[in-house]
Amino acid sequence: MSLLVVGSVAFDRIKTPFGEQDDILAGAATYFSIAASFFTEVSVVGIVGDDFTETHEAIFREREIDLTYLERVSGGKSFRWFGEYSYDFNTRTTHDTQLNVFADFKPVLAPAAAEMTHLFLGNIHPELQANVRKQSQAKIVGMDTMNFWISGTPDSLHEALKEIDLLIINDEEARQLAQEPNVIRAARKIRAMGPKRLIVKRGEYGAALFGENSYFAIPGYPQEDVVDPTGAGDTFAGGVMGYLAATNNTIEDEAALRRAMIYGSVMASFTIESFGTDRLLKLTYDEINDRFRTFKAITHFEEHLHEF
Amino acid sequence: MSLLVVGSVAFDRIKTPFGEQDDILAGAATYFSIAASFFTEVSVVGIVGDDFTETHEAIFREREIDLTYLERVSGGKSFRWFGEYSYDFNTRTTHDTQLNVFADFKPVLAPAAAEMTHLFLGNIHPELQANVRKQSQAKIVGMDTMNFWISGTPDSLHEALKEIDLLIINDEEARQLAQEPNVIRAARKIRAMGPKRLIVKRGEYGAALFGENSYFAIPGYPQEDVVDPTGAGDTFAGGVMGYLAATNNTIEDEAALRRAMIYGSVMASFTIESFGTDRLLKLTYDEINDRFRTFKAITHFEEHLHEF
Repeated sequence: MSLLVVGSVAFDRIKTPFGEQDDILAGAATYFSIAASFFTEVSVVGIVGDDFTETHEAIFREREIDLTYLERVSGGKSFRWFGEYSYDFNTRTTHDTQLNVFADFKPVLAPAAAEMTHLFLGNIHPELQANVRKQSQAKIVGMDTMNFWISGTPDSLHEALKEIDLLIINDEEARQLAQEPNVIRAARKIRAMGPKRLIVKRGEYGAALFGENSYFAIPGYPQEDVVDPTGAGDTFAGGVMGYLAATNNTIEDEAALRRAMIYGSVMASFTIESFGTDRLLKLTYDEINDRFRTFKAITHFEEHLHEF
Repeated sequence: MSLLVVGSVAFDRIKTPFGEQDDILAGAATYFSIAASFFTEVSVVGIVGDDFTETHEAIFREREIDLTYLERVSGGKSFRWFGEYSYDFNTRTTHDTQLNVFADFKPVLAPAAAEMTHLFLGNIHPELQANVRKQSQAKIVGMDTMNFWISGTPDSLHEALKEIDLLIINDEEARQLAQEPNVIRAARKIRAMGPKRLIVKRGEYGAALFGENSYFAIPGYPQEDVVDPTGAGDTFAGGVMGYLAATNNTIEDEAALRRAMIYGSVMASFTIESFGTDRLLKLTYDEINDRFRTFKAITHFEEHLHEF
């Protein structure tokens, strides 16, 4: 199986209550591909400038991530973002966004990329997402989006949603997309727009999976060492899609999707322990499965019904 | 086993996106005792005025709730509250609070009440809570509190917390009480204040249980028919304490506490389907256990580890 991700490779400047760092290798496709690389072969479709150097390339190479389809713009600068978190990490302020070469990103899939079995459309303009989706023969297509596109380009977004297997968004986005405050109702409306499955991310509160007649929800990993939450959502998606690609299950396989969601949450729980991808890059398989076991331990209860 | 609850019996006026109702029989002890009555014998210590009539008494009698220790103040008026919910139920505005007879509530336990095996201290002045706790010989003592006491009477509250087995509060209260934004860290600090166990309620996101070396978390019941969330927290506590009293487990019994938390969540999921206690009063044992089974179904996954 093979997994392709389309999205940003960027550099972040991040300020948190614990410090500030600049020139952090980041972007959705970065977090996604590193997380997925623990499970499967993964290729990145993206665009970078000259500031993406041999050092950065080596990080991907170390994880055996394929950068064949990463476009380099000579004389250009990569996507850059500067954000700051409040003392409790509950609010994030964007100080600066420079699209740079990303402004002209028009992904076209090479034949080998189009044949990959799994595709994830990172958070980019929904017209581009729809366009890439049309070029792909993937059996499972996942997608992300954000409030900017939900309110700014709703028609394009609805078009892009039509041919999606798995939409992964947060609960605020779900409510906004469905124009419905109740998330259970919102999920039904969103699935009617196209996605066969929907995962709603809830930050520290965990995540929920919606199918035709199924519902599954997990709490967040009990993380007390939050250093930088940036990339948690993309890491989550990378874990989910990576596991699905590695195990080659269908989008109908409820048990596999539930486990995929646990692995996504496990991967995200590591990402937030450091700035950027530092913690993720040091990860071992044992650490991953240890946290999977922890998820089982903290959610298990016996179906021992009370005899009234 | 026998369960005693100390708290408000009140009348609410509630405005929600779905309508408005006045003179709703409410208050923490009302929701708590009705929920608990499905599991065990329960007695209420509270205070009411003349507006608490034979009709209201009949509601408790129907559920076999003991009102021997409910004080009636002739010529007085019961506690009254008027609140309004926003369109998405995420914010609640208090328009009016009339303490009335509740302002002079000084609960003293009769000998038989002091001997009851389980005690729940509803959200009242922490000095009163500490005072009642001293009079009781209960083997499990539960307690609630709120932001008003956390910021207003912190010394009294810390005194009251010393001899508590199970504190049940929401996540905002937990963060405020511990002065710590991370709930996992906050829980550790709160347990160090006295409570052997802590349950943090997270509204639609579920609840988490903290012990010395244990953690358990459940999502919220997937409820799409929210009519009035008032009393959900008190109903939850009533289900938890009612189950614990009925099954006579110790506060160390992790498996029993986990099931207690499921039953609390199940009971709360019914309360919010109607104004006041309407839905709760129509409940059957089969409906309760059906939702317990649903909780199992929506949280279960196999510990099938990925072979990397």
